[in-house]
Amino acid sequence: MYSDLKKRVLKANLFLQEHQLVKLTWGNVSEYDHNLGVIGIKPSGVSYEEMSVNDIVIVDLEGNVVEGELNPSSDLKTHLEIYRNYPEISGITHTHSTYATAWSQSGRSIPFYGTTHADHFHGPVPISRQLTNEEINGEYELNTGIAICDTLKSLDINPLHNPAILVPSHAPFTFGNNGYDSAKNSLVLEEVAKMAYLSEAINDNISEASKTIGDKHFYRKHGENSYYGQK
Amino acid sequence: MYSDLKKRVLKANLFLQEHQLVKLTWGNVSEYDHNLGVIGIKPSGVSYEEMSVNDIVIVDLEGNVVEGELNPSSDLKTHLEIYRNYPEISGITHTHSTYATAWSQSGRSIPFYGTTHADHFHGPVPISRQLTNEEINGEYELNTGIAICDTLKSLDINPLHNPAILVPSHAPFTFGNNGYDSAKNSLVLEEVAKMAYLSEAINDNISEASKTIGDKHFYRKHGENSYYGQK
Amino acid sequence: MYSDLKKRVLKANLFLQEHQLVKLTWGNVSEYDHNLGVIGIKPSGVSYEEMSVNDIVIVDLEGNVVEGELNPSSDLKTHLEIYRNYPEISGITHTHSTYATAWSQSGRSIPFYGTTHADHFHGPVPISRQLTNEEINGEYELNTGIAICDTLKSLDINPLHNPAILVPSHAPFTFGNNGYDSAKNSLVLEEVAKMAYLSEAINDNISEASKTIGDKHFYRKHGENSYYGQK
Amino acid sequence: MYSDLKKRVLKANLFLQEHQLVKLTWGNVSEYDHNLGVIGIKPSGVSYEEMSVNDIVIVDLEGNVVEGELNPSSDLKTHLEIYRNYPEISGITHTHSTYATAWSQSGRSIPFYGTTHADHFHGPVPISRQLTNEEINGEYELNTGIAICDTLKSLDINPLHNPAILVPSHAPFTFGNNGYDSAKNSLVLEEVAKMAYLSEAINDNISEASKTIGDKHFYRKHGENSYYGQK
Repeated sequence: MYSDLKKRVLKANLFLQEHQLVKLTWGNVSEYDHNLGVIGIKPSGVSYEEMSVNDIVIVDLEGNVVEGELNPSSDLKTHLEIYRNYPEISGITHTHSTYATAWSQSGRSIPFYGTTHADHFHGPVPISRQLTNEEINGEYELNTGIAICDTLKSLDINPLHNPAILVPSHAPFTFGNNGYDSAKNSLVLEEVAKMAYLSEAINDNISEASKTIGDKHFYRKHGENSYYGQK
Repeated sequence: MYSDLKKRVLKANLFLQEHQLVKLTWGNVSEYDHNLGVIGIKPSGVSYEEMSVNDIVIVDLEGNVVEGELNPSSDLKTHLEIYRNYPEISGITHTHSTYATAWSQSGRSIPFYGTTHADHFHGPVPISRQLTNEEINGEYELNTGIAICDTLKSLDINPLHNPAILVPSHAPFTFGNNGYDSAKNSLVLEEVAKMAYLSEAINDNISEASKTIGDKHFYRKHGENSYYGQK
Repeated sequence: MYSDLKKRVLKANLFLQEHQLVKLTWGNVSEYDHNLGVIGIKPSGVSYEEMSVNDIVIVDLEGNVVEGELNPSSDLKTHLEIYRNYPEISGITHTHSTYATAWSQSGRSIPFYGTTHADHFHGPVPISRQLTNEEINGEYELNTGIAICDTLKSLDINPLHNPAILVPSHAPFTFGNNGYDSAKNSLVLEEVAKMAYLSEAINDNISEASKTIGDKHFYRKHGENSYYGQK
Repeated sequence: MYSDLKKRVLKANLFLQEHQLVKLTWGNVSEYDHNLGVIGIKPSGVSYEEMSVNDIVIVDLEGNVVEGELNPSSDLKTHLEIYRNYPEISGITHTHSTYATAWSQSGRSIPFYGTTHADHFHGPVPISRQLTNEEINGEYELNTGIAICDTLKSLDINPLHNPAILVPSHAPFTFGNNGYDSAKNSLVLEEVAKMAYLSEAINDNISEASKTIGDKHFYRKHGENSYYGQK
């Protein structure tokens, strides 16, 4: 019954390793199948080399395991909180990819410096608010999801138009229309993070690109007037 | 009739992926066949893994599709404007390669710091003028080509002697005697961009290399007195 | 008799090359088999491509060769000194991996900037005290081990909770529950070292992450209340 | 007659590509066979993928072609001048490897920051004197060799004890007991150049490592009291 979902989730997780976005057992992708009302997610601490379709864990929106022998990703509750708040999101990826994680650790959002960024992210890539010590010592993963949603809402961000957020002292999460789409956004985020770092190093008086070029490139690829790709 | 051209254009596009100059569906190479009076170019938004010879789109110099089922690259009009202004150019490549894009985003031309640069680019790698908001909101891709040509002309640059230009807040274009040649110039540009970045980081009082060494290396490889390679 | 140990030690050494943590013949992994009372270690100056199980050298805790035709790693005495001081350590890896070595050469410990670090290292990655000229000119490798143990003790570090140390002007050593585990810690250390370098470059006013988040992530993966992975 | 030499020279050249020290047709390795009185060197402008044993050009110490259909590397006269001045050198490699070239372009010698450096280079990696405009416009490649030898002599450097030199605004040359050995030194130089760059970025108050540790590591691997590797 969940076999197609599990295959898609496996493929999306393996994408992370193929593109060097994860090391060892780090990272995870989930996908929410709205028709089936369940979510498939990577099992916790399993290596990408050894993962197979039946290792993917199927849970409901409250995190109860519906199918699967293994423990789901320890970050499951972060994913669930985001899915509950944003029904339009059907895929979430978490990595510790090098450059995006460095921006997270630096405590800075990623400024908008060019079209590579604008093709995928409409505005600077935000960084979520700090957790309180009580939030960290309490339901940590749930609270990480709450902080992400708080930040997206306070900045009035459409998470499919700006499908990435950095968690300070931690690492990024990306969103998508399905698991694979969110994983591809992790790849783009990593490249955008690297380019932004280098752009600042090359010009320490750099300023952000204009809203005009940002809108132009974003809407070349998104929305009813988009004209990139094949229809 | 266009089969040889399509094969050459496919090969040149695949070169970009083999050398990690592109991610996902980014980038594109075109080649202008002056005998046939047509241009072959990558289709828009198609992945390199799945691209085959018959996906290459054949267009005329005004951009009308002569052969092919797919939409041509969304950057087509930039290519066409350059071909119309510089008949000596027969190949154009556009990438978002990491270091060259970082220089583009930084808004700086790439200074001439050494012989790796001079072997391929005669003078600093220029950066094109900014587009106005009207140009961005209007015929954006055409206007990008116009700005590139304006800049090359105002700097009196021979685009086969300095076969690369950075577009600010965007990414580079490179030129060549055919598509493959322009793609190789993208590889060289990326390496030159990385070396220039590192050279400045190692010595923040760096000065450009001399015109004498620049001329020496450029003409070792170009023109009637060149003596690099096999004749 | 030592065949299983030798296989494990070979596999752990090959891990270093597979993950680009070593070049040429650099680096070495050892494992202490407490049941057999012996240590298996890489032979000195042998390339990873050519190394086979029987090249692994078996020594006792004083460094006498018990089995094997080849000379053990020239760093053997550093390993032995650490094993003698910390019976809980059963694996040691030494590499000259790029970023961790750069931190060693810079003379700085690696600050704690995020959860990638905290998942594996409980506190900043320490740097050992300088050797005196007499220590360098005397029993250099033994004295390197002594300086490492001196530093761990003066900082009251549990080397399985913070399983890495940088040697100034030199390179890192990592520890583990077996050779392979220590080699994996070298992989993590290299990534943490790279991220810390980038984080400082992105924000030169960066401050360390909080002890609360450090404890949270460390104990998610370690100790009786850990809940990462499969039990 | 020259078949063994040509095989060794081919293998050494291919090493450069296997280790990403060259792009396209850049770089070259030569080896001087003192018994045969000839030098084998890479042909000019030939790609590594297509190079075969019979493409290696055999020349005498004055540069006359003894065997081979192709033009020798355009850098031949630099190699010859070094062989003529230093009979103890039997292999020379020239690359434009990224980090070593960046140091060359920056105009700085590479300071001695740690044991990775000292294991292979006894003292800072020197940078050769600038060429005059007359030297550049005259016998450029010969004059590059003269400037290299001038610099080694003025610094009283034994080129097998410090087997690398940077040419300003250009790129490095490395030396060895044979072609393959000099190519391996190019690999080490590139890594040492990267580590030195990073070490300075991590600590802008960095100071060089001590002569004591430099001597210790160099003589662990070189000379009659060396004890690294298998005898």
